[in-house]
Amino acid sequence: MAPGGGPTARRGILERLDNGEVVIGDGSFLLTLEKRGYVKAGLWTPEAVVEHPDAVRQLHMEFLRAGSNVMQTFTFSASEDCMESKWEEANVAACDLAREVAGKGDALVAGGVCQSSVYKDHKDEARIKKLFRLQLKVFTRKNVDFLIAEYFEHVEEAVWAVEVLKESGKPVAVTMCIGPEGDMHGVAPGACAVELAKAGADIVGVNCRFGPRTSLQTLHLMKLGLEAAGLSRHLMAQPLGFHTPDCGKGGFLDLPEYPFGLEPRVATRWDIQKYAREAYELGVRYIGGCCGFEPYHIRAIAEELAPERGFLPPASEKHGSWGSALSMHTKPWIRARASREYWENLLPASGRPFCPSLSKPDI
Amino acid sequence: MAPGGGPTARRGILERLDNGEVVIGDGSFLLTLEKRGYVKAGLWTPEAVVEHPDAVRQLHMEFLRAGSNVMQTFTFSASEDCMESKWEEANVAACDLAREVAGKGDALVAGGVCQSSVYKDHKDEARIKKLFRLQLKVFTRKNVDFLIAEYFEHVEEAVWAVEVLKESGKPVAVTMCIGPEGDMHGVAPGACAVELAKAGADIVGVNCRFGPRTSLQTLHLMKLGLEAAGLSRHLMAQPLGFHTPDCGKGGFLDLPEYPFGLEPRVATRWDIQKYAREAYELGVRYIGGCCGFEPYHIRAIAEELAPERGFLPPASEKHGSWGSALSMHTKPWIRARASREYWENLLPASGRPFCPSLSKPDI
Amino acid sequence: MAPGGGPTARRGILERLDNGEVVIGDGSFLLTLEKRGYVKAGLWTPEAVVEHPDAVRQLHMEFLRAGSNVMQTFTFSASEDCMESKWEEANVAACDLAREVAGKGDALVAGGVCQSSVYKDHKDEARIKKLFRLQLKVFTRKNVDFLIAEYFEHVEEAVWAVEVLKESGKPVAVTMCIGPEGDMHGVAPGACAVELAKAGADIVGVNCRFGPRTSLQTLHLMKLGLEAAGLSRHLMAQPLGFHTPDCGKGGFLDLPEYPFGLEPRVATRWDIQKYAREAYELGVRYIGGCCGFEPYHIRAIAEELAPERGFLPPASEKHGSWGSALSMHTKPWIRARASREYWENLLPASGRPFCPSLSKPDI
Amino acid sequence: MAPGGGPTARRGILERLDNGEVVIGDGSFLLTLEKRGYVKAGLWTPEAVVEHPDAVRQLHMEFLRAGSNVMQTFTFSASEDCMESKWEEANVAACDLAREVAGKGDALVAGGVCQSSVYKDHKDEARIKKLFRLQLKVFTRKNVDFLIAEYFEHVEEAVWAVEVLKESGKPVAVTMCIGPEGDMHGVAPGACAVELAKAGADIVGVNCRFGPRTSLQTLHLMKLGLEAAGLSRHLMAQPLGFHTPDCGKGGFLDLPEYPFGLEPRVATRWDIQKYAREAYELGVRYIGGCCGFEPYHIRAIAEELAPERGFLPPASEKHGSWGSALSMHTKPWIRARASREYWENLLPASGRPFCPSLSKPDI
Repeated sequence: MAPGGGPTARRGILERLDNGEVVIGDGSFLLTLEKRGYVKAGLWTPEAVVEHPDAVRQLHMEFLRAGSNVMQTFTFSASEDCMESKWEEANVAACDLAREVAGKGDALVAGGVCQSSVYKDHKDEARIKKLFRLQLKVFTRKNVDFLIAEYFEHVEEAVWAVEVLKESGKPVAVTMCIGPEGDMHGVAPGACAVELAKAGADIVGVNCRFGPRTSLQTLHLMKLGLEAAGLSRHLMAQPLGFHTPDCGKGGFLDLPEYPFGLEPRVATRWDIQKYAREAYELGVRYIGGCCGFEPYHIRAIAEELAPERGFLPPASEKHGSWGSALSMHTKPWIRARASREYWENLLPASGRPFCPSLSKPDI
Repeated sequence: MAPGGGPTARRGILERLDNGEVVIGDGSFLLTLEKRGYVKAGLWTPEAVVEHPDAVRQLHMEFLRAGSNVMQTFTFSASEDCMESKWEEANVAACDLAREVAGKGDALVAGGVCQSSVYKDHKDEARIKKLFRLQLKVFTRKNVDFLIAEYFEHVEEAVWAVEVLKESGKPVAVTMCIGPEGDMHGVAPGACAVELAKAGADIVGVNCRFGPRTSLQTLHLMKLGLEAAGLSRHLMAQPLGFHTPDCGKGGFLDLPEYPFGLEPRVATRWDIQKYAREAYELGVRYIGGCCGFEPYHIRAIAEELAPERGFLPPASEKHGSWGSALSMHTKPWIRARASREYWENLLPASGRPFCPSLSKPDI
Repeated sequence: MAPGGGPTARRGILERLDNGEVVIGDGSFLLTLEKRGYVKAGLWTPEAVVEHPDAVRQLHMEFLRAGSNVMQTFTFSASEDCMESKWEEANVAACDLAREVAGKGDALVAGGVCQSSVYKDHKDEARIKKLFRLQLKVFTRKNVDFLIAEYFEHVEEAVWAVEVLKESGKPVAVTMCIGPEGDMHGVAPGACAVELAKAGADIVGVNCRFGPRTSLQTLHLMKLGLEAAGLSRHLMAQPLGFHTPDCGKGGFLDLPEYPFGLEPRVATRWDIQKYAREAYELGVRYIGGCCGFEPYHIRAIAEELAPERGFLPPASEKHGSWGSALSMHTKPWIRARASREYWENLLPASGRPFCPSLSKPDI
Repeated sequence: MAPGGGPTARRGILERLDNGEVVIGDGSFLLTLEKRGYVKAGLWTPEAVVEHPDAVRQLHMEFLRAGSNVMQTFTFSASEDCMESKWEEANVAACDLAREVAGKGDALVAGGVCQSSVYKDHKDEARIKKLFRLQLKVFTRKNVDFLIAEYFEHVEEAVWAVEVLKESGKPVAVTMCIGPEGDMHGVAPGACAVELAKAGADIVGVNCRFGPRTSLQTLHLMKLGLEAAGLSRHLMAQPLGFHTPDCGKGGFLDLPEYPFGLEPRVATRWDIQKYAREAYELGVRYIGGCCGFEPYHIRAIAEELAPERGFLPPASEKHGSWGSALSMHTKPWIRARASREYWENLLPASGRPFCPSLSKPDI
């Protein structure tokens, strides 16, 4: 199977999913660009699209090479409530960058909105919907291929977002940043999924806040909820690239390591191959990542599912499957690592014997 | 203190070091670009400088923003024995990229060579020196500011490299990838340093293979050796960005996690601030990193030593010192993390309770 | 408060519990005497009561000194199906030893039966009840104070045991070795408790197989089940003295460390004080331990609940509360350990950096 | 090979060692009896020999059954400076208990002294020697078989002890509680061993303070020192039964877990078999344990060296070699644990994911 998959027609997100294809999402922008020096932790706003477009373009390129079929506009928190007068310029620039890179491969552009900073204090539907509509106006003008509403703690606000985005007539995906315990008001994942589906979402799922394993547990509950309600929607998973078995209801924000001590939790590529397989077996077909998902993690999804998809991503030209490129090493004990069995069974050490393996969330 | 440090004259490496200034090196190219999709693990050659110059340029830019004063040409293993006919084009392209980015800030260009693939089987001085001379010819033509011979397991070959590089008349730095037990033939670090100094090296030190703490132990032994011999040279440290207390003589290559399971060992920015301080106190003034050192790790060196240097790097505009940008968070328990005391004392959990904290090297 | 509690009338188990008093159980016999050289792991039969009565008497004495109010006859598996012709002699000897030691303090004698080896293959009520009746006959002859049916995986067999033991007219306690997932046939803890209460048990609870924390979770479910059914019974907890957060349904038997590698899981005295407090707050008044509970663990229960009970056990004359006896140490950093705060907050290291912190059960 | 080894003549300690036989020491008294309720931590004095002789006798019996060839009098700190007027009664009682139990098997009685509480403040040779002489007088009257001076931090005081004990004309063993860094005044282990040998010690070694692995490292240095000096003495090891790779110079006293949080560090029987083998291969022939060594640990020494010795200890009648007694278990996954390979390769989990694997010593 040759890397890249050859020229294909640019088909829509639902066309692909309805056809049973795997759509690979992209990965981490905020945390990755923070480490590269372009995003300020704490603020977590995407002014880099204007200030440092080369850096953002490069990251898009890396995800495209890794196999992403979606270039999500880097517009997280790029709403008027978070960025004031700069919001519009940011949304425009983000759309242009996403479109420019998407054009270099088989990727769609998705315009993205996230929960507002308003909801937690004022559950003001009109005001919040207006914020979403402002961003949507740019996305419509820039003709994105579909829309994603992501990172919602409360299903009520997510429903509002879906309702607004559906006004565009484009496909709408929605993901909540909740765990198996449900949203912040106690609505269970299954019930959340049903509400979102009823609001018109074409694709439903989870993103951020929880690691791959926990996220799939939540998504499983969503799936059961949809089935029980006789509803059918495409499923989408974009979890953290961190291991968080010790998370409480609030996810990784409440872990003491957030956000500057998460390194020991970063998933290996082999962890992500396992996640991709489990997601696929659960019936998820939109599979990507969120904070902590680096380009090589996305490539790991594409490589794990290459047998099903029939092709490898471009970046696999620089990667031997399951460590096979080690087979030429001069040291025999390193050559011995060139196998799937080796990496699947490795229990990687932290090199930190004075540290624990789990933390207690702060709340 | 304002980010950037303002306009300064471009002064030479020895001028800076002789003046007692801190010179900040750059970080990881091979492992970082492997994760971004441009380098093949196992081969570890830098053909990306030709194939994907945007990706290499971007990484140079990130290190420059983070505070690096040296743009090292991405020419690791770019010698005739490893890259065959492609070697020259790669060296030329790497020099151009380094110079282009160096010109955007206060950075020097260093031409880099590393140990040959020949030495371990044939200790053929003439052949090996010829390899170094080929690369040096390009560096001279491209007028790099100084030269670095790095990643030598055997002091004998490192001496040959220094001898060749000194032919250029430019300053020469040399670093070995050895631990406290010394080189692969059993020459102790102190003795290695003395031989390298006598061969004409202006700057002597360690790079790669071992984590920050172990590397400084080795460098301390080098320093003692130089002092005992009545020699004085500038010291240089470019360790791994991984914790490796469990390494044997061969360094991280022999750990079972190398190279695809090292994630839990990645240093936090706070670990690197500690390393920078300890290096400074040991008298090291050329302080950088090697594999695993991401741009934010380099920034951490620059931030830790900002009081001594009087300025912050450009990328600090996107970073609150010691987590200070968390002080505005809506959740009080996250605001409580906005302090030096918090991050200095954090013992970050791995999120991997089924994994050990140390590994046994394979040899 | 003086150790010992002074002379008190020997009152019955129900008299004490009905009066709201705390009754402290005893601890580990099989595993403790295995380590002392008198019980064979794998067989787990109590022939030591005949072969080495001094060793058994001594352990009873240690629990009595530690504060136990119950000397349970060492008759685990001392039934005809496990010990053949030796069963009767063992039961007689065990009763005599328990009575002898109980007479030296404020303790009652409890005759104990456990699940049969028959049930798992043949759910033969008549045959199994006959086995219980044989042991009960000895207990009646020896006039034990009350009866305990313990270590039942299936509530059906536990009910049979209760029905037989109730024939004696003496108080009956019954404990199951189940976790929060319920018995081996899937009967939930709450339902188990209700069945046992309806069968006539005066005291209901859990013992063995799971650590203190998990055991209290199970007991909490039992309590909720009883409350929902409008039933009220005394609660009893005799968990493992090992930490087993990683147990599956089968408990510690299925952990790879069972039975010869459990050392790193042994609870500290401070862990047990915490357990005692939590048990008390849950409303449990019969508080003891099972495998892994050494005499000092029982003392820890007695010391934690000394404020409620008004007295300390005899063995506290050899123990400074919360490490207070360290306050005279010659080294100041050891004197600094003489406080409750120190020991409550200590996170004890395993000294085993090559080992994980959790295991996967074998099934 | 039958348990027990059959009746043998009671031969002296040197007769056995000179003959190349393995002599198995006993284990932990203070810490073990602390957990059983008879010794007060902090004081660490052996008044139990008078107050609770049954408890002490029972522990002697357990070690005898486990294979100990030496019943060491429980006279640690039973000197006038620590126990005042009670010292003599304690020494007498301890000798009687040791002799009584030794007579029930193939064991010798050793009278034991340890470092004084005086030396650290007053290096008063006359006063300290007088203290040793007082205990020796009792040992001579009670006709112990040989003498042990143990737990010395300073070689100078150990030499004084040897000099006094040699006055008796009986064989003298001496062990220091030092690590590879040497005694508290910086005298290296090799030099300590030479001084002790020259003072007349027949047997030289280490006890307490450090785990098995570290203790054998120290003993190896002692052996090299003796060899370099052309001296030959029998070697003796009685380490902790705890893993302490993280100890500093002062040993386990300085670990934050001492003395009430050491549980996760307790060695398994398999760890001790490994220790016994390594000690034997180092040439050590007097092999026992100190704090933390329970009877089953001593049995593990006897079982590991049974091939060399030709017999098993009495307590092996209650122990299947390498878990063989599990081969009859009803659950197949537990039967699978009945092998040497299983237990040798097990990496036992701590069940404590919130705890580190190593600690930093307090000093």
